[in-house]
Amino acid sequence: MPRLTIRIDFDNGDQLGPGKVRLLELVAETGSIRKAAAQMKMSYRKAWLLLQALENTFQESLIVTATGGRAGGGARLTPLGARIAALYRGIEAKTLKGSSTDLRTLEKHTSHKRLR
Amino acid sequence: MPRLTIRIDFDNGDQLGPGKVRLLELVAETGSIRKAAAQMKMSYRKAWLLLQALENTFQESLIVTATGGRAGGGARLTPLGARIAALYRGIEAKTLKGSSTDLRTLEKHTSHKRLR
Repeated sequence: MPRLTIRIDFDNGDQLGPGKVRLLELVAETGSIRKAAAQMKMSYRKAWLLLQALENTFQESLIVTATGGRAGGGARLTPLGARIAALYRGIEAKTLKGSSTDLRTLEKHTSHKRLR
Repeated sequence: MPRLTIRIDFDNGDQLGPGKVRLLELVAETGSIRKAAAQMKMSYRKAWLLLQALENTFQESLIVTATGGRAGGGARLTPLGARIAALYRGIEAKTLKGSSTDLRTLEKHTSHKRLR
């Protein structure tokens, strides 16, 4: 089955796509921007800039960070941060479901060079 | 209303996205690879390579070209070429329709920096 990737272009010109969404999800999973960045093989700075861009798009905090303390800092998503990732994955899932016949038709016509 | 862009990753590793689909549509509209390339502001060579990649993905002719004659050459889509573009646009349309509530919810949370 082919995979789908969706990019959303908002009216203000900002974009939401798989990279930013995955980053949000990994911050939630790992509890750390640094670990999330490492899993995506990107620099901490790159991850931080992407998250800044996201918060700029939505004009609200999507991530809460704590510094120091016993847990040595860490990060988690705000409710809106979690909501945005979930909405994106929902759109993706609905597309896959609604278009599975079309996708299979396209796939059927492709060559099969590489097995995965 | 936000815009959606869909990219399909086939099992063989090849991709189908908005650029290749638009190119097919413009060849159909203009009857010429050169004119289609010009409308997309890309070189003829770039357009030709994209179309070669597409035909390689689908292992069948998607475009028929005629050289010389009164019409001075020209290009048109094969039935499969037209079908692929139509299937892609169908998936796009179904996604927009099926996800309009989610998209509006996301849009509602964005800032409105630029009017379009």
